[in-house]
Amino acid sequence: MSNKQFSHLDSQGRARMVDVTDKSETRRQAVAGARLRMQPATLAMIRDNAHPKGDVLATARIAGIQAAKKTWDLIPLCHPLMLTGVKVEIEPEGDDCLVITALCKLKGVTGVEMEALTAASVAALTLYDMCKAVDRGMVIEQVCLLEKQGGRSGHFVRDAPGSDDD
Amino acid sequence: MSNKQFSHLDSQGRARMVDVTDKSETRRQAVAGARLRMQPATLAMIRDNAHPKGDVLATARIAGIQAAKKTWDLIPLCHPLMLTGVKVEIEPEGDDCLVITALCKLKGVTGVEMEALTAASVAALTLYDMCKAVDRGMVIEQVCLLEKQGGRSGHFVRDAPGSDDD
Amino acid sequence: MSNKQFSHLDSQGRARMVDVTDKSETRRQAVAGARLRMQPATLAMIRDNAHPKGDVLATARIAGIQAAKKTWDLIPLCHPLMLTGVKVEIEPEGDDCLVITALCKLKGVTGVEMEALTAASVAALTLYDMCKAVDRGMVIEQVCLLEKQGGRSGHFVRDAPGSDDD
Amino acid sequence: MSNKQFSHLDSQGRARMVDVTDKSETRRQAVAGARLRMQPATLAMIRDNAHPKGDVLATARIAGIQAAKKTWDLIPLCHPLMLTGVKVEIEPEGDDCLVITALCKLKGVTGVEMEALTAASVAALTLYDMCKAVDRGMVIEQVCLLEKQGGRSGHFVRDAPGSDDD
Amino acid sequence: MSNKQFSHLDSQGRARMVDVTDKSETRRQAVAGARLRMQPATLAMIRDNAHPKGDVLATARIAGIQAAKKTWDLIPLCHPLMLTGVKVEIEPEGDDCLVITALCKLKGVTGVEMEALTAASVAALTLYDMCKAVDRGMVIEQVCLLEKQGGRSGHFVRDAPGSDDD
Amino acid sequence: MSNKQFSHLDSQGRARMVDVTDKSETRRQAVAGARLRMQPATLAMIRDNAHPKGDVLATARIAGIQAAKKTWDLIPLCHPLMLTGVKVEIEPEGDDCLVITALCKLKGVTGVEMEALTAASVAALTLYDMCKAVDRGMVIEQVCLLEKQGGRSGHFVRDAPGSDDD
Repeated sequence: MSNKQFSHLDSQGRARMVDVTDKSETRRQAVAGARLRMQPATLAMIRDNAHPKGDVLATARIAGIQAAKKTWDLIPLCHPLMLTGVKVEIEPEGDDCLVITALCKLKGVTGVEMEALTAASVAALTLYDMCKAVDRGMVIEQVCLLEKQGGRSGHFVRDAPGSDDD
Repeated sequence: MSNKQFSHLDSQGRARMVDVTDKSETRRQAVAGARLRMQPATLAMIRDNAHPKGDVLATARIAGIQAAKKTWDLIPLCHPLMLTGVKVEIEPEGDDCLVITALCKLKGVTGVEMEALTAASVAALTLYDMCKAVDRGMVIEQVCLLEKQGGRSGHFVRDAPGSDDD
Repeated sequence: MSNKQFSHLDSQGRARMVDVTDKSETRRQAVAGARLRMQPATLAMIRDNAHPKGDVLATARIAGIQAAKKTWDLIPLCHPLMLTGVKVEIEPEGDDCLVITALCKLKGVTGVEMEALTAASVAALTLYDMCKAVDRGMVIEQVCLLEKQGGRSGHFVRDAPGSDDD
Repeated sequence: MSNKQFSHLDSQGRARMVDVTDKSETRRQAVAGARLRMQPATLAMIRDNAHPKGDVLATARIAGIQAAKKTWDLIPLCHPLMLTGVKVEIEPEGDDCLVITALCKLKGVTGVEMEALTAASVAALTLYDMCKAVDRGMVIEQVCLLEKQGGRSGHFVRDAPGSDDD
Repeated sequence: MSNKQFSHLDSQGRARMVDVTDKSETRRQAVAGARLRMQPATLAMIRDNAHPKGDVLATARIAGIQAAKKTWDLIPLCHPLMLTGVKVEIEPEGDDCLVITALCKLKGVTGVEMEALTAASVAALTLYDMCKAVDRGMVIEQVCLLEKQGGRSGHFVRDAPGSDDD
Repeated sequence: MSNKQFSHLDSQGRARMVDVTDKSETRRQAVAGARLRMQPATLAMIRDNAHPKGDVLATARIAGIQAAKKTWDLIPLCHPLMLTGVKVEIEPEGDDCLVITALCKLKGVTGVEMEALTAASVAALTLYDMCKAVDRGMVIEQVCLLEKQGGRSGHFVRDAPGSDDD
């Protein structure tokens, strides 16, 4: 790691938006994940609601998609970009956890991992918001990059996603 | 928990912004936390940068404060509110972790835990963004409410914050 | 109407944000409506989707609620305000129409009719967006104020709402 | 219509932002319209103001242009895009109606009809806002797509625009 | 000045949003100014346009008003607040200058000088944008606070506004 | 200058977003400057803070970068665009002035001078905000374009930047 650097800082440690003017467009995508750990009774309520007409999961999906589009505004040194596809999935895992997976796609000059991570985080926060009246002790865990394609850094796949904090 | 409900859904499971028109103003505050787990070499680089003039931690603090102010725009059913104080602190823990703590304050009719959680999450995402060129495997862990005061639900303090995932 | 004026213009016709500094807070609410006229086959598809798990109506409700919170940013001379309750309802009418009703509430110094109208409009636009792949000829009709309470102008109820364009 | 689908939903009815990563750029434009129906006395006041220096129409034009640029933020599943031209025109029709026409242009991978519809809607809402102190019964009517060019769906022109509700 | 401090930094120099939770509401207002210096021919064009129907000045007024409402989003440590009145005036001065004056009002716990300064700055930038095709050498000068009332710091009036750089 | 026109107005003086649909992409950049004049004691405090860990300059840099990305939202007739690089530098000059320099880059169809000017202005406003508790008489001066490259108008360099108000 000796020759690596924080690309978002100049040689004097000052923040800047990295110059990508001369990079060429490629097809890019990233997948990020998050987990919301809760009491089993809370997950049971979400499941009950989820079936017929409840808006809990739909609201969180929408919030995640919209947050992906605002990543450039939330993360100060992110480049503005025009996402060409976003998908947020939320699935229960065991009896006390919701797993959020966010996929972002782009034909452009910068990667979209921050967009996928932001989508997953905000979807998790939205689920928290909708359930906090019944369970204040929920925890968002394991927000991380699962997979990334396109760009110079090549194909990244996280080893055994989620395994290291269970 | 039998008589609890998801306050953000009406009796048919449809999303709404809860009516707080007739609640009276009280002094409220909430503290939320998050952790960013990284390689020891990454934390060492941040420490080196943090001393003289580096902008890594300052950028994340600013991003967290700004995100707190935008919570109503990010989380669909959150009420707009006028925060009267926000503070984001970032401290290293051990040799591979940054601990983010966000405090939000308000004199108003709704709690500010979502604002504190959003500030902590976005500060963590910003740190991730600034360090991802050197460490793609970082994980945001343990985003949760640590303390909450004001409002009908009384004083909440999380037991042994952070203890359960270490 | 001889002594009425456009309050948003000064004596020389220039736009300004009306000074409400010295008005006192009162409880206010407004209800606005909109209709989305479409082909019967389109409405049939929405109904089919609406039952088990489809997100069409939920997405439009969320979009309407979020737009209400952004009214001050969309309508140049609107005052910023802190809505204390928002509800958006969408119901089919006959075989070719969705009726959107938006309710906004506030304890404050300005009315919330623009917020309710904006919520209804954006919910209708969102429904249009989600259905346009199957029906490009949809029309948004009858966006209007249905009821308004609070403030000096008293209680307003629209006569026979919706009757005049059917 | 049997083989048509709601493109914004996946096979299980869940909202997503449609993947357009592999579509090729083309020149696109869309024209949308809206009508604001009011009392003749209100229109007379606008006409009086419009001539020398009044800001009513200018404010609405600006609001429409700015809203077009924010469509991706208002309509949850819209793609972010970079409009290359926007024009909003407002003309009186008869003695009780303002007709708003919005044109949006783009070289890109997605259509711009939602941008044109949003511009027309927000311009109409802004006119409503500026005139509501003198006329609370105004109605926004006939928000619809008038013309669309570019993209796979070909050239669309609405038949006799506005004819069906007059 | 020996006992003064940067209120936006904590004792270790870290940015924070100052805690105003316990301050009491008062009536506040601030007036800020800016000047846009240009070639006389440019000002002549604006004057010609300003008379009958031109949108140059109206667009700048609107932009200034809207920017005042977004100050909390632009200036990282500003508190969100609900302006109760905004007015932007633009007048020619001599043959080569436009003078922008912005007034902001609030009943609240924080001052509104940043809002007035932001309104004046963005109105000046908007004028620059609209005129830059004919005059690229324009300069925005003398952006400063002219007057401030309300709050603990008392009544401030700038001495001979604009005198010191002419 | 006889054949020049305000490009942002149509033939009747009405605001529009100029149509750039058919312009071809080129590499563009612009540099803008601003000065914040203050009391020598204020600058001394900033210098003291700037060395070890203070966030004053970092906060202003971040605010400038973020404002550049929002220029399309602040300046009504600006085109949305995707900046590919932004840098904001702040240096003291003499004993009573901070000089802000903002560089914006883009591969696109429109110039980025408004983005650079907006970044410089908002960085200056942010510095003002952080220092106003100790010095209310600060003045932002000399906000202007210093250099511009790319596009049909060729290479522009301001003569002796800043010379005329010193």
